[in-house]
Amino acid sequence: MPAAAPGIEDVRHAAARLAGIAHRTPVVRSRTLDELLGGRLALKAEGLQRVGAFKFRGAYNAVATLTESGPVTGVCAASSGNHAQALALSARLCATRATILMPHDAPAAKRAATKGYGAEVIGFDRYSADRQALQAQLAAERGLQIVHPYDDVRVIAGAGTAALELLEEAGELDLLVVPVGGGGLISGCAIVIAALSPATRVVGVEPQASDDVARSKASGRRERVAVGPTIADGQQLATPGELTWPIIDALVDEVVTVSDEEIVAAMRLLFERCKLVAEPSGASALAALLAGRIPAVDLRVGVLLSGANIDAERFAQLVS
Amino acid sequence: MPAAAPGIEDVRHAAARLAGIAHRTPVVRSRTLDELLGGRLALKAEGLQRVGAFKFRGAYNAVATLTESGPVTGVCAASSGNHAQALALSARLCATRATILMPHDAPAAKRAATKGYGAEVIGFDRYSADRQALQAQLAAERGLQIVHPYDDVRVIAGAGTAALELLEEAGELDLLVVPVGGGGLISGCAIVIAALSPATRVVGVEPQASDDVARSKASGRRERVAVGPTIADGQQLATPGELTWPIIDALVDEVVTVSDEEIVAAMRLLFERCKLVAEPSGASALAALLAGRIPAVDLRVGVLLSGANIDAERFAQLVS
Repeated sequence: MPAAAPGIEDVRHAAARLAGIAHRTPVVRSRTLDELLGGRLALKAEGLQRVGAFKFRGAYNAVATLTESGPVTGVCAASSGNHAQALALSARLCATRATILMPHDAPAAKRAATKGYGAEVIGFDRYSADRQALQAQLAAERGLQIVHPYDDVRVIAGAGTAALELLEEAGELDLLVVPVGGGGLISGCAIVIAALSPATRVVGVEPQASDDVARSKASGRRERVAVGPTIADGQQLATPGELTWPIIDALVDEVVTVSDEEIVAAMRLLFERCKLVAEPSGASALAALLAGRIPAVDLRVGVLLSGANIDAERFAQLVS
Repeated sequence: MPAAAPGIEDVRHAAARLAGIAHRTPVVRSRTLDELLGGRLALKAEGLQRVGAFKFRGAYNAVATLTESGPVTGVCAASSGNHAQALALSARLCATRATILMPHDAPAAKRAATKGYGAEVIGFDRYSADRQALQAQLAAERGLQIVHPYDDVRVIAGAGTAALELLEEAGELDLLVVPVGGGGLISGCAIVIAALSPATRVVGVEPQASDDVARSKASGRRERVAVGPTIADGQQLATPGELTWPIIDALVDEVVTVSDEEIVAAMRLLFERCKLVAEPSGASALAALLAGRIPAVDLRVGVLLSGANIDAERFAQLVS
């Protein structure tokens, strides 16, 4: 394990920070799913987390860690996704300020939601700007702390609390299936599993259009891919994280991929049978099980449903 | 109160029967809703109940009451809605058999779901058959016990357990808003409120196209209306129940109506902000609040979300 990786104690500290602030999301069972897959499933419904995604866990842990150690001018990140809202709300709860760099062409709803949590949103041009340089400059000029969406030990430790809760509630698991984008969620979960339930297999799921982590697992080194179009916008990354990759390399057993059609089928089934809303990335782990990519027969299977931020029209388009 | 009405003790007995068998459904809070309405809302998410609707509570209480007192040949009902599935599952759990009379033109999915819970489904012609006579004949020939979807004290007492749980979890309420179809749910809830929280106002909500209970409340006697088309198929009834009407007359403060458009707006908001699936009838109580039919400013408001049985395509049609 890389020296920089968080340990189980970091996840436990994160859990203590999140207690009473993050939701302890429900673990949902479904006889229909169990019959379809031949195993016993436990779905961790992180779509019911604050801001509608697991991202709140990591962002809050990072901001609370910062503000515990003294006054903080503010935090910043470049994100147009769930991390932006998670960081904005976390900053508000910790009585500090978030500044979010968001591409000019980000959806108006995302911008409004992020501002709604009290953050300042600064636009940039997705094609011409170097967002890393822009972020570094902003942080330096204003004295802000950067909270990266996944390459941050505090963010990874926070994400791991989802697996901690799932183990506490569901009991022993043979298999844990987790969506993979930048790898923060699966890294945190894998650290928990390695410490508390080492016999449990950890399998990651990526969209076919963005299979950088699957390819990296196959070759044994960080691969970079050309990201194609996919509905799973939370998982459109070209290469594994610098910090998350060594953790995934060491602790994740396998990474498989799913198609957009398979994701939509999982979203539909979650809606109709479990009465759960899932955004495409949020349904990808279940999609891999339903598509037969990961055998579940006679297994106790934990599944991370990572988020539910999708508007009704978009859901309607996808399932029609 | 009519002598035939169940009392709070009947609801408590129902709660004891349902313990460990029905789900204790979550009470969902939403800052967005609170800000929109100016009150503090507590949503009882009965869409997450077994069979996807509150109907399981009443059906199970009825069947368990029967089977506790001795051997039962079986139970029957005429229903193409959630009561059919609720009775089918309840019969299976109580080791007896359900026979469901369902119109030939009922959706194939409803028939399949009911059969999937182990019930026998007998078709009849919706236009030519007298369903009451058919049901009485079937019950007599086969020695079956009829479990009416709402005009049954055991069903009403079972439905009341939803309000009991809501009061236990949400604490004091100024207002409780409940969808009204046949009136079983609101009757059970009103009995609980009258006994445990008499200062709480109880308001029912009907679709405009089927406003029999609102009209009956206005005139003070059971009115019959011509039911028009509405998306709220769980609430398309022409007249209040024989047993539920006197309870509603005595214990419900007001009944208001909502349009289909208002129901869709509530379904959309539940999906996007609360990540909850609701069928049209299930969203009607919240719709009345959002439409301003029932003031909520500065009030602690309980809202019954009664069911979530809607397929993804139908939801897509409605919100598009």
